[in-house]
Amino acid sequence: MAASVQLVPALEPIRPHMEQVACLLDARLAGVREPLRSALCRSLGAGKQLRPALVILVGQLLGAAPTPLTALAAAVDMLHTATLIHDDLVDGAALRRGRETIHTRWSVGAAVLAGDYMLAEATSLIAHLAHPSVFAVFADLLCRMCSGEITSMFLTAGERYSPESYYRGIEAKTALLFAAAAEMAALLAGADAPQATALRCFGREFGMAYQIVDDVLDLIGDEARLGKPVGSDLRRGVITLPVLVYLEGAPEDDPVRGALSAGADEGHVRAAIAALRASAAVEVALAQACAHVEQGKAALAGVPDNAYRQMLCAVAEFVVTRSS
Amino acid sequence: MAASVQLVPALEPIRPHMEQVACLLDARLAGVREPLRSALCRSLGAGKQLRPALVILVGQLLGAAPTPLTALAAAVDMLHTATLIHDDLVDGAALRRGRETIHTRWSVGAAVLAGDYMLAEATSLIAHLAHPSVFAVFADLLCRMCSGEITSMFLTAGERYSPESYYRGIEAKTALLFAAAAEMAALLAGADAPQATALRCFGREFGMAYQIVDDVLDLIGDEARLGKPVGSDLRRGVITLPVLVYLEGAPEDDPVRGALSAGADEGHVRAAIAALRASAAVEVALAQACAHVEQGKAALAGVPDNAYRQMLCAVAEFVVTRSS
Repeated sequence: MAASVQLVPALEPIRPHMEQVACLLDARLAGVREPLRSALCRSLGAGKQLRPALVILVGQLLGAAPTPLTALAAAVDMLHTATLIHDDLVDGAALRRGRETIHTRWSVGAAVLAGDYMLAEATSLIAHLAHPSVFAVFADLLCRMCSGEITSMFLTAGERYSPESYYRGIEAKTALLFAAAAEMAALLAGADAPQATALRCFGREFGMAYQIVDDVLDLIGDEARLGKPVGSDLRRGVITLPVLVYLEGAPEDDPVRGALSAGADEGHVRAAIAALRASAAVEVALAQACAHVEQGKAALAGVPDNAYRQMLCAVAEFVVTRSS
Repeated sequence: MAASVQLVPALEPIRPHMEQVACLLDARLAGVREPLRSALCRSLGAGKQLRPALVILVGQLLGAAPTPLTALAAAVDMLHTATLIHDDLVDGAALRRGRETIHTRWSVGAAVLAGDYMLAEATSLIAHLAHPSVFAVFADLLCRMCSGEITSMFLTAGERYSPESYYRGIEAKTALLFAAAAEMAALLAGADAPQATALRCFGREFGMAYQIVDDVLDLIGDEARLGKPVGSDLRRGVITLPVLVYLEGAPEDDPVRGALSAGADEGHVRAAIAALRASAAVEVALAQACAHVEQGKAALAGVPDNAYRQMLCAVAEFVVTRSS
């Protein structure tokens, strides 16, 4: 299990700690019935592990004790996995990282319970830290993420095309979790309020940048590396930043508007992707992501400048240059 | 809102406190988007309110401060509502208390998010009590409930007909929440370990009795009062205590076995219900429920004998004589 942890190069120095996180995740799933256990094991510890790595880096930067830090990192990964399982169900997504999603492989009920179980285990790991300010950040995160998801589900037509809705949506979906992960790690390390706020701010900007790049890759990425079809947001009618940038001043008969209209087919989606790729919209969106990374780095000015702070910056820069 | 709280007669003395719980629930939902807000308002504060009432009674019995006790009772009601929303989705139930369930009225996604939101709000209320041992009981409850639900979903054919599976299942589905509600209220009141254990035990036995009676009412209850069709467990192939009792020694061609076979139709279900009602199985199951209530009352021997303890006993006795 631990040997399979895949990390981006900037995270290699914390590999031993990330392997401890993987072992703890494995141990927490030991009591789950098959066939769900195998499915959950595959989901946990998968992907780029940026959220648990953020916990480890921030905690190490500020001198947190390793054992509770491992538990917090595992809790953050479990919470993230819970949100992926439920989001895939809400969105009707058939694939995640190239594999069938739980509701596709088994049933709606299995996906509901698997997500609930991951959330319960995350809450249990947090509870056993016995650190009330960490609980409070965790609980506030849950409320704000769920509230944001409900808002996204019931957007009016006008809101769907508003940049404010887009930014609020990616904050709830992604940036709040990065922000809370960094803040909880800082609190666990005994950080004072200004430091905890600085690290929360870094996490938020990192998360905003990450999600903008994710939305760009949905249009320009390679299907094999993404593990899902290109253009899946367009197909679901989800308006992301490059599309918002592109549509500013686009004519009524533009192919991107066509792909977002009722009755759009695969031809419309392919034409829209080609038009978006040929435009400057992707570059403008990526510049926004870079600006968030710069703001995040600036927030770190007052925290100790050691090897962990340099790794945080390196990981944030990786995020805006990644290709999958 | 507060005026609509419906209580069983034994709970009338705590009506003012229960109305405060209803007001807090209402306030916590103020930020949710319509149309979900109205649906959640209807779900919360509905039913017999036994779980939040158990919190109030135990807390008052041991002298807990009223404000955190109100928050704990609201959290328990929100957690219960979250489990109902997700369970109805997992079970594909179209009706709850005579109204369309959220996934029936809107979508699977709306029900997933509504349940997640209720759970998040419950976690937030608990986190802000800033009482680590209460948070630990809450987190442990979530893990055990989810794990039990997953176990029930993947039961083998042999396990479906085993009394051990039945008792484990109703413990996870119902009794653990009653047990944790009573234990958390005791801990909040500053109870020592033996008292907290005694109240947890009372809650567990109360919950076991409640669920056995619920399973009996599914066979012998009045559809209008139940708000759902009689025999819904049989139709879903769920084996409950009266059915287990009945099937002991029943012949191969028995109508109850017929209703549980592949290809059973509405006629088989009606015949099975008639056979069960005519048998002694219902009485045997109800006697089991009464035995749990007696064990629960016995667990209270070491706690102060005041008006609240008498109300706890009266509510437990109501549970085994109720008709809906």
